[in-house]
Amino acid sequence: MGSLASEPASVTKHGVEEPTESWVLNTPEPPSLWDELTSVVRKTIVPRQKKSSSLLKCSISALYGLFPILRWGRNYDFKSFKSDLMAGLTLASLGIPQSIGYANLAKLSPQYGLYTSVVPPLIYAVMGSSRDIAIGPVAVVSLLLSSMIQKVVDPSVDPNAYRKLVFTATFFAGIFQASFGLFRLGFLVDFLSHAAIVGFMGGAAIVIGFQQLKGLLGISHFTNKTDVVSVIKAVLVAVNQPWHPDNFLLGCSFLIFILITRFISRRNKKLFWLAAVAPLLSVILSTLMVFVTRADKHGVKIIQHVDGGLNPSSAKQIQFTGPYVGKCAKIGLICAVIALTEAIAVGRSFASMKGYQLDGNKEMLAMGFTNVAGSLTSCYVATGSFSRTAVNVSAGCKTTISNIVMAITVFIALELLTRLLYYTPVAILASIILSALPGLIDIKEACSIWEVDKMDFLACLGAFLGVLFGSVEIGLLIAVAISFFRIIISSIRPRIEMLGRIQGTDIFCSMRQYPKTTETPGILIIHIESSFLCFMNANFIRERVMRWILDERDDTEKAGKSLQSAVIDMSNVMNIDTSGITVLEEIHKKLTSVNIQLAIANPAWQVIHKMKLARLVDKIGGTWIFLTVGEAVEACSGAKKDDGCGC
Amino acid sequence: MGSLASEPASVTKHGVEEPTESWVLNTPEPPSLWDELTSVVRKTIVPRQKKSSSLLKCSISALYGLFPILRWGRNYDFKSFKSDLMAGLTLASLGIPQSIGYANLAKLSPQYGLYTSVVPPLIYAVMGSSRDIAIGPVAVVSLLLSSMIQKVVDPSVDPNAYRKLVFTATFFAGIFQASFGLFRLGFLVDFLSHAAIVGFMGGAAIVIGFQQLKGLLGISHFTNKTDVVSVIKAVLVAVNQPWHPDNFLLGCSFLIFILITRFISRRNKKLFWLAAVAPLLSVILSTLMVFVTRADKHGVKIIQHVDGGLNPSSAKQIQFTGPYVGKCAKIGLICAVIALTEAIAVGRSFASMKGYQLDGNKEMLAMGFTNVAGSLTSCYVATGSFSRTAVNVSAGCKTTISNIVMAITVFIALELLTRLLYYTPVAILASIILSALPGLIDIKEACSIWEVDKMDFLACLGAFLGVLFGSVEIGLLIAVAISFFRIIISSIRPRIEMLGRIQGTDIFCSMRQYPKTTETPGILIIHIESSFLCFMNANFIRERVMRWILDERDDTEKAGKSLQSAVIDMSNVMNIDTSGITVLEEIHKKLTSVNIQLAIANPAWQVIHKMKLARLVDKIGGTWIFLTVGEAVEACSGAKKDDGCGC
Repeated sequence: MGSLASEPASVTKHGVEEPTESWVLNTPEPPSLWDELTSVVRKTIVPRQKKSSSLLKCSISALYGLFPILRWGRNYDFKSFKSDLMAGLTLASLGIPQSIGYANLAKLSPQYGLYTSVVPPLIYAVMGSSRDIAIGPVAVVSLLLSSMIQKVVDPSVDPNAYRKLVFTATFFAGIFQASFGLFRLGFLVDFLSHAAIVGFMGGAAIVIGFQQLKGLLGISHFTNKTDVVSVIKAVLVAVNQPWHPDNFLLGCSFLIFILITRFISRRNKKLFWLAAVAPLLSVILSTLMVFVTRADKHGVKIIQHVDGGLNPSSAKQIQFTGPYVGKCAKIGLICAVIALTEAIAVGRSFASMKGYQLDGNKEMLAMGFTNVAGSLTSCYVATGSFSRTAVNVSAGCKTTISNIVMAITVFIALELLTRLLYYTPVAILASIILSALPGLIDIKEACSIWEVDKMDFLACLGAFLGVLFGSVEIGLLIAVAISFFRIIISSIRPRIEMLGRIQGTDIFCSMRQYPKTTETPGILIIHIESSFLCFMNANFIRERVMRWILDERDDTEKAGKSLQSAVIDMSNVMNIDTSGITVLEEIHKKLTSVNIQLAIANPAWQVIHKMKLARLVDKIGGTWIFLTVGEAVEACSGAKKDDGCGC
Repeated sequence: MGSLASEPASVTKHGVEEPTESWVLNTPEPPSLWDELTSVVRKTIVPRQKKSSSLLKCSISALYGLFPILRWGRNYDFKSFKSDLMAGLTLASLGIPQSIGYANLAKLSPQYGLYTSVVPPLIYAVMGSSRDIAIGPVAVVSLLLSSMIQKVVDPSVDPNAYRKLVFTATFFAGIFQASFGLFRLGFLVDFLSHAAIVGFMGGAAIVIGFQQLKGLLGISHFTNKTDVVSVIKAVLVAVNQPWHPDNFLLGCSFLIFILITRFISRRNKKLFWLAAVAPLLSVILSTLMVFVTRADKHGVKIIQHVDGGLNPSSAKQIQFTGPYVGKCAKIGLICAVIALTEAIAVGRSFASMKGYQLDGNKEMLAMGFTNVAGSLTSCYVATGSFSRTAVNVSAGCKTTISNIVMAITVFIALELLTRLLYYTPVAILASIILSALPGLIDIKEACSIWEVDKMDFLACLGAFLGVLFGSVEIGLLIAVAISFFRIIISSIRPRIEMLGRIQGTDIFCSMRQYPKTTETPGILIIHIESSFLCFMNANFIRERVMRWILDERDDTEKAGKSLQSAVIDMSNVMNIDTSGITVLEEIHKKLTSVNIQLAIANPAWQVIHKMKLARLVDKIGGTWIFLTVGEAVEACSGAKKDDGCGC
């Protein structure tokens, strides 16, 4: 920190005629509130448009912006297609079992997971700007949706009503995402800090893991709550009743199989496809085993009937009236934010790896259209998946064509293979979901957050524990609250530092940060470390500054000297409001009454403008407002010597 | 706005051996989160205590702190008492009619207003640290209380239940105020900006004025709503029915009388007592007139029975169970904040006029005890009144003894004179309240807010219109929301400025604020004007910085030159979180990939510490982090020349 200043001597030395004092007072008027508002609105509506372009060019460029496939599609060649084909097939082999599992997590029939892997990837492929992301259902959003909607309608009692609410929430999520993109409200997604997301994802992964105990243990009656305590209680109750260990054995052995294949893939990068096809392989093997042994008659739970065929329309199931519309909108908003957060995080990390830029607002628009289209075709909220995107990239995808290949493959599976899923054991779905969870728990990142920023870690921990022991919403709320609390606290209690001079220079720095700096006798230099001197911190700053100055005066008087001047370095104060102006006025009044000269150094544009408007410049005196701390100290020392009381 | 820097040449010139670069990297470790937390807690519990003091001294000083009367009481002399006696009597002559009027506004019987002028001033007199403030019922809090509680229980239907809620809310208000003081939460009161208070007070005054139409027109059935539209409708309905113009005539003539006396008092400062006694005089005259003419039989509404005697206990009426406790606590909280805001604003302005300091936390503690004691003795929320404090000061009060004198006078009036109030017309109370309202509407201040800060004026206007057309709570909510919105907006969309050099110096300033500054060829200097580079603004800053750098590169390349380096001036960034670190890392990575050298200037204490922890210093290179912009520019120019591509 610290403010850095050059002495006026060096200014004149280098040949500037006018004193810098007049520089400070004679700045042009800063843009007014109206100017800034219109400029923001203009930038929002017409973002970064080059001038002198015709209407046709404009619309073509808008079309290209909306459908990036038009741009890169013209140069798309067979070689890329071969890569994308391979990546898409690999993706499908992972995506089919995952989709069925996530549908189970979302308390929907398996086909809805598959539907969500058909339409959304197709829409995203033509509208999205990320080349790597794999779109479809994901674990956290599935959990979020089911945990919130089952509080409104119980899916085991009325699955039709539940499904209607899911589609309505998906529709709202899409509308929210599209409007975020349209109105360039991308910053709303930024309200979830990185640390909070790490904690939230970790907590959600553990909650999802515990939910899988139902499938893994073949429990029929399970709790609807998601917190760990309720789930463990429910499991203990279930385990004390007669249960079928076959489910558990089957699930665990295939989980171990999947984990081993992943271990091998990590060791040998060429075998990455092993990890990708292992889930599908598990599904096929376990289905065969159950079919051959007819284990379903001995207590092994199976999926049973799965509807085949292409996505049916669900446009009529979306509800715009009725008692639950408000709740659906709220759930849609939360899902929209979480889904966007995940998609943008995934998209950005791979874009930065491959060295291209991702426009957050355009991504939001694409995701919004994706989910609106999905909600009309029996899909629930889709977004970019961490695990599948990684597989997509490893498999060598070049463009979003791999998503299209995957969608077509899933579509074929829906047409032809759903009957084969009849005997698939439920425990296998649990083990597939469980195997995807470690990727969501980022202990390394949590450690590095702890190392770098304790307060960030607190937000991370709050989100984690909130999800684990409260609910998904409570976790989110805690994370946002801690992050905001921190910003508010640093606004209402800004640091105030004393500046000292680096010996032999005109550089003034915080004396705590740079202990080698020295005080200037008779002059106290105070640096206000807040970017906004406003109603929230004005009283605090006044009290702190006044106490420091008066304490310093007492101390110097005890030492037989006297405090002549106080310099307030305003470099960091970017804006001021009427409360701030009042406080500066009061400080000046009080200092004048105890014979201490007040000097202001380096007021920002808005600050000096408002000081002029409030006639504070006249009260303090234009000659006591300086461009640099160095000049202020120089002037104060000069005045002191003139008074004949140098020290 | 600008950052100011000295070139390293001047550093070595003046004989500092080590390069300042090592200064930046070798700072001591900043206080950890734990240190800061414990220091805040320690300061909160043991505020500003001198060391080496015994337990006895400690407790005596605590006692003095709690009861300031012990400190100044020892030097209290007869001369001061004479002044206080006169001030107290003047205060009582204004306070008695005002208290009755405000009780009417709070929908309580007249005696409750008088009770509130007995106990609270006595308690405050021994605990308060302001010498001038006059404690008692005030207009805005009376309105606030009645408008919120009558939504729960209608006072015209069940006055006893209503009164119980009033005492309960008063009790909670006292508890909240005392705990604000005890836990040093004074900043909570700062959440209402000065501008918001100006707007809120103005709106409340107009609402109170409209409420007085009921008394002034002698209307029996009036609306319970406070917004102007409802009130005007109710008045129009009432006026179209037969009504008694005598009430209106009586009220208006005495209102004119009071306003004329005030005008005379303003012209001639010696006649200040005229304005102070005019309300009492009006009460006496109008009561006599009604008594003599028996006008009450011809439609003039009178107060009728007023209970005499000292405050009865109301301890048993405070409710800690039942359905309304939560609501009472909420109402108590709002009243506590508004009452404190008014008391502290009044107290501070007169303290600053007389040149003494007021400790906000101690004031809150005193007000809290005052209201808790009040709630036990049939008083409602009391606070410092604008109008009566001004009269108290004009009458020459020296200490809080004037409050004691007033309380005793009101007590005597309660014992002896309540019977005489039987014939007092209600219209007179309305005119007394109306006459006190202009002091709450500060058009001059609103104009100066408009002039200095448009956004502040918006908060002011929002609060004003919210109170006027919504309700008191809506007005408060709008004011707080606008004020916060502004802070959040400036946090998530910080300004980013390009810096230029003041020719012939090493001072670098914002090029927009100081248009005479010049760019350094081949080097772009960017100044981030946010005090916190965090999750909320990190993406925005990254996008803005990257776009600027890349645009600048394209422009310079068009001009046949090349952009070699980018200097990010971090002077204003006081803190950073993991998102901010990530963004800096990404900027560095991207710039390296396009062959632009990144240099960081003047990172603050926490920032450089966290950059070291996150190993970002190693990535950027310790030699590219500088104490001043000047040094950074110097080093960049040097590197450029070394590369042999100077321009």
